[in-house]
Amino acid sequence: MGIESYLPSGKARLDQQLKFAAEIDKMTGILRRTLLVDHGRRENDAEHSWHIAVMAMLFEEYAKEKVDVGRVARMCVVHDLVEIYAGDTFAYDVKGNEDKEAREAEAADRLFGQIPVEQGKMIRELWEEFDAMETADAKYAACLDRLQPFLHNTLTGGHTWVESGTKRPSVEKRMAIVKEFMPEVYGWVEANLDRAVEEGWLG
Amino acid sequence: MGIESYLPSGKARLDQQLKFAAEIDKMTGILRRTLLVDHGRRENDAEHSWHIAVMAMLFEEYAKEKVDVGRVARMCVVHDLVEIYAGDTFAYDVKGNEDKEAREAEAADRLFGQIPVEQGKMIRELWEEFDAMETADAKYAACLDRLQPFLHNTLTGGHTWVESGTKRPSVEKRMAIVKEFMPEVYGWVEANLDRAVEEGWLG
Repeated sequence: MGIESYLPSGKARLDQQLKFAAEIDKMTGILRRTLLVDHGRRENDAEHSWHIAVMAMLFEEYAKEKVDVGRVARMCVVHDLVEIYAGDTFAYDVKGNEDKEAREAEAADRLFGQIPVEQGKMIRELWEEFDAMETADAKYAACLDRLQPFLHNTLTGGHTWVESGTKRPSVEKRMAIVKEFMPEVYGWVEANLDRAVEEGWLG
Repeated sequence: MGIESYLPSGKARLDQQLKFAAEIDKMTGILRRTLLVDHGRRENDAEHSWHIAVMAMLFEEYAKEKVDVGRVARMCVVHDLVEIYAGDTFAYDVKGNEDKEAREAEAADRLFGQIPVEQGKMIRELWEEFDAMETADAKYAACLDRLQPFLHNTLTGGHTWVESGTKRPSVEKRMAIVKEFMPEVYGWVEANLDRAVEEGWLG
């Protein structure tokens, strides 16, 4: 069973697209460090990507510049696709982040080469824009990508911070884009950082 | 731990939005009948919603009318939110579908009442539009919502069909929107239905 069971349609382009749809199901097996709020199990990339796409529809009013929510939602659902081959790199893993860029560029070539050229290009450009964090849409998506696990950490006893022995300055660095682009929300982030240190969740 | 650990921001509106973001994480615990392609475990609503949102970016060219992909992606990520309280109703469960509408309307009141009025209204309208299947965007989203589990079934030995003893005419009825709105893709659907009957996956 699995992809070897795929029945060709007789149309090469459609087959590429359907097989790609099956391939990206692997996102459900890429585990992040973050715990889900209620289940005590680790979140996967599909769940995380979905979650921040919905959040894109809720927090627009706090963005410092005008954003295109439909475009951000698309960016959110594809921003971690390369992890299918490159794996998830934990935000506070210094070593893992050293070769992250090279691993992910290779993964992108492999993954986006499976669909028609212009579609691969379209998704790759959204991912690259997200990663560069220069446009308003990318900054907003990056804020959501940081706020969602931060929210989960505040509701799970600082799970990933405790587990990894993370210190407050590392989290502040990670959350700097929220401070810059969603300053009104950053007040809540700061209060949670204070609490996390008090509770011993953060060093 | 969990939502009782939420630290208020001092801003009622922001608190509503952040708590809602935490509440919808429950989608990761709503299991569907569909199996994931590779893991032999059941898919959850968050994974399914994410999957069809990405697919919205791939299959636009087969839609019979012009669609707004960014809008469809947003529709996809919220189309099953009411299942947080109403539960997943299996497509081929006749009894469960009898009171589905009432259960989901009640769930919508409860869920969308948790965020600022205009945001609750915006998401509810997207969900209602999806359910009514009248606009081009809703038809396209509905096609993806049917094609994704269909693809999974073809790659997992017809898992949900076999398990539920589903017959071919029920699947044809379920896939009718694909026949109408994405006729080019329906050829592939039909070939898979033939195979499923031959293999004994469908009665």
